Amino acid sequence: MRIIVAGGDGFCGWPTALYLSRKGHDVAIIDNLARRKWDIELRSNSLTPIASLQERVEAWKRLTGKTIRTFIGDLTHYDFLCEVMRQVQPDAFVHFAEQRSAPYSMIDREHAVFTQVNNIVGTLNVAYAIRELAPDCHLIKLGTMGEYGQPNIDIEEGYIEIEHNGRKDVLPYPKQPGSFYHLSKVHDSHNLMFISKIWGLRVTDLNQGVVYGLHTDETLMDPVLINRLDYDAVFGTALNRFIIQAAIGHELTVYGKGGQTRGFLNITDTVRCIEISAEHPADRGEFRVFNQFTEEFSVLDLAEKVKRVAEQEGYMVNIANIENPRIEKESHYYNAKNTKLQELGLEPNLLTDDVIRGIFRSVLEHKDRVILDNVMPTVKWG
Amino acid sequence: MRIIVAGGDGFCGWPTALYLSRKGHDVAIIDNLARRKWDIELRSNSLTPIASLQERVEAWKRLTGKTIRTFIGDLTHYDFLCEVMRQVQPDAFVHFAEQRSAPYSMIDREHAVFTQVNNIVGTLNVAYAIRELAPDCHLIKLGTMGEYGQPNIDIEEGYIEIEHNGRKDVLPYPKQPGSFYHLSKVHDSHNLMFISKIWGLRVTDLNQGVVYGLHTDETLMDPVLINRLDYDAVFGTALNRFIIQAAIGHELTVYGKGGQTRGFLNITDTVRCIEISAEHPADRGEFRVFNQFTEEFSVLDLAEKVKRVAEQEGYMVNIANIENPRIEKESHYYNAKNTKLQELGLEPNLLTDDVIRGIFRSVLEHKDRVILDNVMPTVKWG
Repeated sequence: MRIIVAGGDGFCGWPTALYLSRKGHDVAIIDNLARRKWDIELRSNSLTPIASLQERVEAWKRLTGKTIRTFIGDLTHYDFLCEVMRQVQPDAFVHFAEQRSAPYSMIDREHAVFTQVNNIVGTLNVAYAIRELAPDCHLIKLGTMGEYGQPNIDIEEGYIEIEHNGRKDVLPYPKQPGSFYHLSKVHDSHNLMFISKIWGLRVTDLNQGVVYGLHTDETLMDPVLINRLDYDAVFGTALNRFIIQAAIGHELTVYGKGGQTRGFLNITDTVRCIEISAEHPADRGEFRVFNQFTEEFSVLDLAEKVKRVAEQEGYMVNIANIENPRIEKESHYYNAKNTKLQELGLEPNLLTDDVIRGIFRSVLEHKDRVILDNVMPTVKWG
Repeated sequence: MRIIVAGGDGFCGWPTALYLSRKGHDVAIIDNLARRKWDIELRSNSLTPIASLQERVEAWKRLTGKTIRTFIGDLTHYDFLCEVMRQVQPDAFVHFAEQRSAPYSMIDREHAVFTQVNNIVGTLNVAYAIRELAPDCHLIKLGTMGEYGQPNIDIEEGYIEIEHNGRKDVLPYPKQPGSFYHLSKVHDSHNLMFISKIWGLRVTDLNQGVVYGLHTDETLMDPVLINRLDYDAVFGTALNRFIIQAAIGHELTVYGKGGQTRGFLNITDTVRCIEISAEHPADRGEFRVFNQFTEEFSVLDLAEKVKRVAEQEGYMVNIANIENPRIEKESHYYNAKNTKLQELGLEPNLLTDDVIRGIFRSVLEHKDRVILDNVMPTVKWG
């Protein structure tokens, strides 16, 4: 298959591009290198020292003989996007290329507006470009489990049958996102549900949980291929952040009570979920939704797991329940369905102590790179 | 009360501004005059010859002694908006200032992107400006009944109690909008639901039905105050469009079977609904949703009513079921709730033959202004 990976220089996109390339697909990356710019803006960095995209794909070529074409540009520039579509003629378009940090979207008005406009316009452009230049192409769009929020009923995969006043219908699952970023994904979902219907596009919306880990078999092949790893309070996500805090002797920053429960998955499962989606395309006109996570944990659960493993490794760890910078429920019902990807062949890599230990040891190699100022949260919701 | 009416030069905004001014409120209009520009872009016009906004408010001052301040500028220009907020210090902000045509949003990619960015960014800016400069101000935001689409169950006012797998919750009503415009309103609703919660803003979302009529008591006071009236296939809406078609001897253009059922209300009820909302502000932190319509009709119902009245007036009328340019259900269940505004005092002006006759006779005075090229639909969804 010819597959475009938009956002292919990022934390999920880069290992996905390598994995799909190794599996024999003809992979092309689109990226505007925005994630690297945001590091500069935030005076932050990847814990791991990452090579340039050019160095990365050259190393991949050297190691495997496989070519990954790269197109540096922005999905909001429609002419650029169309030119890539003409050159690649993709069978699948994997769309990771959004601003994906909730705190970043909450910094101020400019960041809120940027996040929503960037994500919505990029996705609209992708849909228009597919319609115009590759109408059979399967759009695999990354959503987030955060679109659903924390309802007091079970979370289904995209749709829910509702019985009301004696009548029934299957309707889009109600959304209660908790940041301007999460809202942007909800807007994308509504736009794509409509677009798939009126233009007959194939769309899979992957409502992904929180991704942890950093290595995949492919990124481990050479240091130049190493994946980025975020530990800062803006782009870092719960489990990875705790592991890095444990490695540098920082208290684990649990926001509030820590009863916030979310779906999680290993980066090695992310890349497999994309492959599964690509191998089983949505039908023409179908807007298909998969919940892409393997296990549910509360934030406090995770902190305690990390504490236990780090102490086994000889590190002292404290858990601190700090003031929650977000406005969110700190204890709530949470039960989300995630069977569809497993029915298509996903075999989850679960979060064992050994997995945490592996990430912890990788992190230790680079812990001197941590910029301490970036560890505590500074962006507030209220 | 000090009330800003954003979009106060438009079809709903202008009569609302006059009505609130007559009722003794201190009214300020924000408008970027975009609606007049779109007429130029589309080579279209208002059926009624409308004066400039400056002439309008000068006439109002002359007739009533009341001043309506005007601020010409765009909600997407945040500095401009903040300056208006500082000068007016509003108690209520009535927000009509969006691109509100479904066909306009479907013209092409640029118009889709424009509609969504314009509406979303304008509304985000209004919310940020209220938070920053007038945090107790009540935001009265125009949504649309089109946000709900046509589900096979009853449509509630904003929220629905769902029982699922033995548990219950009250959740945002699922949305199935049918154009990039309607989608933009759904995006606004999600954004404002979140914003009201995290910043404690007062927000009322008015999911308005299709508005018909043109005159209110205030716009009738002088020809300079006359309201605009759209008949073209881009900005004209069902009932008004049929009446004008009948007046010029054009067949009534029912799209497809005509079983499409929607909520409708008279422009005289629109202005009263705004007053009711302003008089009963939402609580701090409340995102309140009212369905703002008084009656439900199918498109074919309306065409038949217009035909009957026009024939009584001595005009021959044919109904034509033309090819539907939209992708939508042409026969479906439809039952939407609309009790909340009536509980607060709305006394509906229903659609009688006399009401149709009144609009018809007003239209006849200006029928020579119709540009025939604009009557048939040209924008397609597919």
